[in-house]
Amino acid sequence: MQVYDAPLRDMRFVLNELYSDDGFGALPIHAEFTPDLTDAILEEAAKFCREVLLPLNRPGDEEGCHLENGVVRTPAGFIEAYKAFAEGGWTSLASSPEWGGQGVPEAVGKLVEEMICSANLSFGLYPGLTHGAVCAIEGHASDALKAAYLPKLVSGEWAGTMCLTEPHCGTDLGLLRTRAVPQDDGSYKVSGAKIFISAGEHDLTGNIVHLVLARLPDAPPGIKGISLFLVPKFLPKEDGTPGPRNGVTCAAIEHKMGLKASATCQMLFDNATGWLVGEPHKGMAAMFTMMNAERLSVGIQGLGVGEAAYQSAVWYAKDRLQGRSLAGAKYPDKPADPIIVHPDVRRMLMTMRAYNEGCRALSGWVARALDAEAHSPDPEVRKRASDFVALMTPVVKALFTDLASDSANLAIQCYGGHGYIRESGVEQYARDARITMIYEGTNGVQALDLVGRKLGANMGRYLRSFFHPVSQFIEENNVDGPMKPMVEGLARAFGALQLSTATIAQRGMKDPEEAGAASADYLRLLGLVAMGYCFAKSTKIAGLKLFFGAEDKAFYDAKIKTATYFFERILPQATASFLAIKAGKTSMMALADDAF
Amino acid sequence: MQVYDAPLRDMRFVLNELYSDDGFGALPIHAEFTPDLTDAILEEAAKFCREVLLPLNRPGDEEGCHLENGVVRTPAGFIEAYKAFAEGGWTSLASSPEWGGQGVPEAVGKLVEEMICSANLSFGLYPGLTHGAVCAIEGHASDALKAAYLPKLVSGEWAGTMCLTEPHCGTDLGLLRTRAVPQDDGSYKVSGAKIFISAGEHDLTGNIVHLVLARLPDAPPGIKGISLFLVPKFLPKEDGTPGPRNGVTCAAIEHKMGLKASATCQMLFDNATGWLVGEPHKGMAAMFTMMNAERLSVGIQGLGVGEAAYQSAVWYAKDRLQGRSLAGAKYPDKPADPIIVHPDVRRMLMTMRAYNEGCRALSGWVARALDAEAHSPDPEVRKRASDFVALMTPVVKALFTDLASDSANLAIQCYGGHGYIRESGVEQYARDARITMIYEGTNGVQALDLVGRKLGANMGRYLRSFFHPVSQFIEENNVDGPMKPMVEGLARAFGALQLSTATIAQRGMKDPEEAGAASADYLRLLGLVAMGYCFAKSTKIAGLKLFFGAEDKAFYDAKIKTATYFFERILPQATASFLAIKAGKTSMMALADDAF
Repeated sequence: MQVYDAPLRDMRFVLNELYSDDGFGALPIHAEFTPDLTDAILEEAAKFCREVLLPLNRPGDEEGCHLENGVVRTPAGFIEAYKAFAEGGWTSLASSPEWGGQGVPEAVGKLVEEMICSANLSFGLYPGLTHGAVCAIEGHASDALKAAYLPKLVSGEWAGTMCLTEPHCGTDLGLLRTRAVPQDDGSYKVSGAKIFISAGEHDLTGNIVHLVLARLPDAPPGIKGISLFLVPKFLPKEDGTPGPRNGVTCAAIEHKMGLKASATCQMLFDNATGWLVGEPHKGMAAMFTMMNAERLSVGIQGLGVGEAAYQSAVWYAKDRLQGRSLAGAKYPDKPADPIIVHPDVRRMLMTMRAYNEGCRALSGWVARALDAEAHSPDPEVRKRASDFVALMTPVVKALFTDLASDSANLAIQCYGGHGYIRESGVEQYARDARITMIYEGTNGVQALDLVGRKLGANMGRYLRSFFHPVSQFIEENNVDGPMKPMVEGLARAFGALQLSTATIAQRGMKDPEEAGAASADYLRLLGLVAMGYCFAKSTKIAGLKLFFGAEDKAFYDAKIKTATYFFERILPQATASFLAIKAGKTSMMALADDAF
Repeated sequence: MQVYDAPLRDMRFVLNELYSDDGFGALPIHAEFTPDLTDAILEEAAKFCREVLLPLNRPGDEEGCHLENGVVRTPAGFIEAYKAFAEGGWTSLASSPEWGGQGVPEAVGKLVEEMICSANLSFGLYPGLTHGAVCAIEGHASDALKAAYLPKLVSGEWAGTMCLTEPHCGTDLGLLRTRAVPQDDGSYKVSGAKIFISAGEHDLTGNIVHLVLARLPDAPPGIKGISLFLVPKFLPKEDGTPGPRNGVTCAAIEHKMGLKASATCQMLFDNATGWLVGEPHKGMAAMFTMMNAERLSVGIQGLGVGEAAYQSAVWYAKDRLQGRSLAGAKYPDKPADPIIVHPDVRRMLMTMRAYNEGCRALSGWVARALDAEAHSPDPEVRKRASDFVALMTPVVKALFTDLASDSANLAIQCYGGHGYIRESGVEQYARDARITMIYEGTNGVQALDLVGRKLGANMGRYLRSFFHPVSQFIEENNVDGPMKPMVEGLARAFGALQLSTATIAQRGMKDPEEAGAASADYLRLLGLVAMGYCFAKSTKIAGLKLFFGAEDKAFYDAKIKTATYFFERILPQATASFLAIKAGKTSMMALADDAF
């Protein structure tokens, strides 16, 4: 059964307790967002997710989207839920007050995003892409475009998309063929075919604003000849309301493994009127603003699904009676013990739990950096925050979604045969989560981004934004006491990461294929160390709270136990990644293409 | 795109070249099965799978099965394919000539099974379950039942099922409630509800023979009060042809994540006439004959899907043009290089390839042991073979299916966004493979079987059947030369396995939860060592063939490269499993039930 209650206590821990010393907090612009206020926001969001979005999740998967005469119909209930969502102010939460947003810190906004994705990932995509479009327009469009589009996108009255992929080009956008021809009035006529456009067409909003990559007539070939255009479904009238239909149509929707309530559209642009966003031929830069925001969000999507899968598995593990504890019957009054007593079921639950708590702690840190990057009065802090976000964006995207897929599959495994039946709802999590490893750049592309663009950039400056706090923590806490085994474990894994970094830097300089061959394992290794750091830090704080007699003993106690499980049972995988990196590219590249 | 050509060269390597020294070969009963003959069988099977079964795989997934007025309709084409399958003699391949079978060695039969599961897993379940039923009837039923049922099951005229699970009991069969009441004529009236019955009802055969677990009126409670009954859908007439309908009906079919062309039925037995198979209250023993055969087959199912996923990924990786090789354009005449040039795509392809070749080599060894167990004239060999099969059954089942799920997901990842679209056919592999980790005992149950029943049995005798050849191989080959790094890698992993075995034996004796907490990692560790042994042995043989100028240079060369990849990139995971085992149960069991 799909059950979900937002893990508010853990969210508050990440938001208010874990990172007081990272230098990213106490932003004057967010002074009004006291814990009392953010608590209230989180509680309201939790309620909305539980009561409105969750009940639509499984029916939405069964019904899917339907294309009829060029119109995409979302599943029953989605229109009403979206209306309530926008009216509740959830589309405008983290947007700038300049455009009608509520200016809530990203550190809060990302927690709300997590909840939405836990409750209904398909639904979450509609406002999620809009938020990405807002970022791109805010960062690169003209004032006129901003004024015309941002208020309506922020309010949720209109929705946004990003149109990159074409049938013959996904990762390699240099191949794209969509054309844009300048018109005398300063607009452009955009023509071409795009595929895999999430929310490309739907019945939730009065207009849909497409951000489209296309080539100008004088564009140089390849990636350097791509520009970004804003192409609305309906051209706004003078008064700003939707006017005549533009030359954009949905030709088909895809039949997918999952995420069925999210319309994935083939879009045809036929002399559609659009406007340039940013500089000519600089579309990739503008699109990357949107893409980076989306990449973090996709990581959060993974975490959201992972948490929902975990909660649904816990529910079943307590409900399902089967066998007896190996240590003797634990519930002798029942015909059998609930399966949560079995060590291997515990292993699965604890693994999911550790993944979720570790990811939440890490994304909480990144979200704080997002806020500091945008709003810290201190330029040094802004730079360090920006470095950290740049480094962690591919890690959050790829690590979280890999682990989410694992979690969803572990949840199915907890259910046994019942998990394979659609009615149980857990197999949907595995199908839904699967796309998060792929879209907004496959996880392989994320790993290449990490080793190819982020490691060496600015003489390793991005990396230092992460290595520095980790090494400082190890140094400060490597003392006799209860933290010792954990700190030592972190130090070992961190040592392996440092060594791997040096190896990749050295080999990759001579041979970029060496960096490519190490990339997936390196991303995993860095991610494990980052989670390990977050867990060690959490343990320290939880230990102090317990020592000083905090009220919430059960929470802190569970936090330390989960952290211990992570260190004993999950972090050892760092060794395997390290050894794989050390092995280099030879055996990976040895086979000739035609020997496969 | 779903593509599949049986990997005949690798299959012949496993069948004829790899295990000449294991003592399981040269069985007099199989003297007629020369390589020429077995080649012909494998080639015919490959043709049938490619031409008949593969084309039905994706349409079968789209159409699924339908229940109409108590009748289950399989997807279009299944009836004709099944008819051709039975007429071609494929149902009777490995069965005893006593019942009309062809007595082909299991070592060949399992390769054919693999092909069937690669081409069409859903289809394969129908004859697969029949084969399991044949084993149980052959091993435990009366002569009269054997004579009445075996010839028709072996010929494929009738099909079989196994009916274990009930809504409230899967793994814990002690809870089952289906009753059997003895009648004056020696038959029984069987009543109860069973769920998750694969091929419980369908339109492929003239009769369906259910093997049903139920309780006699005087049965002791729990697992020791369960008996096995044969309950046909149609009661045979005097002349053996199907007569009146028995009290067995299909109440519903399940809507599942995958395996949609295989009917998963809820079966109602309402005073159905049945006959006891084996002794009263000894049904579990009889069912385990069937179950063990099925568990090996489910492992092979995993391998089959893994191979199909690999081949489909290779096809795409050569076809899809995207980006340029990091080492400079490899196909400058094309608009981009095929993605097979990218290290991370290689990583995924090589991983799948290594999984498949490693699993095939291991299951080839186990299949030889099956043959030796049944047919060796030497009682010592029979015992050793039987020990080896007992030890490896849970490993083959769980390891192969875990890896198959990984392979299917890697195949999706190679396809990127296209892999998420149903049309591509690869996401079906992930959905189909997912059930293999669950049915016939979840992989967690397999791991418990390994550490709980197999490790300590007969003072470690089962284990010695595997440890002995491995340590002997290490001893004989740990000399300077090209094999050295591989033998050392194997020795390291084997050392970790030995140490883990001792740890589990020691801790598990005092506290069975310790064995449970180690079980999944131990199974993985043992499986990795077994694959490592198979790869090291393969490398040695391939190296010798190359040294002596064998013709098939490309094959042996690729074999060594794949083995090297396995040792450098996959075997290091053994360390993570070892460390996890060492950590023990504490952190896994620390959290109170209500803290989840």
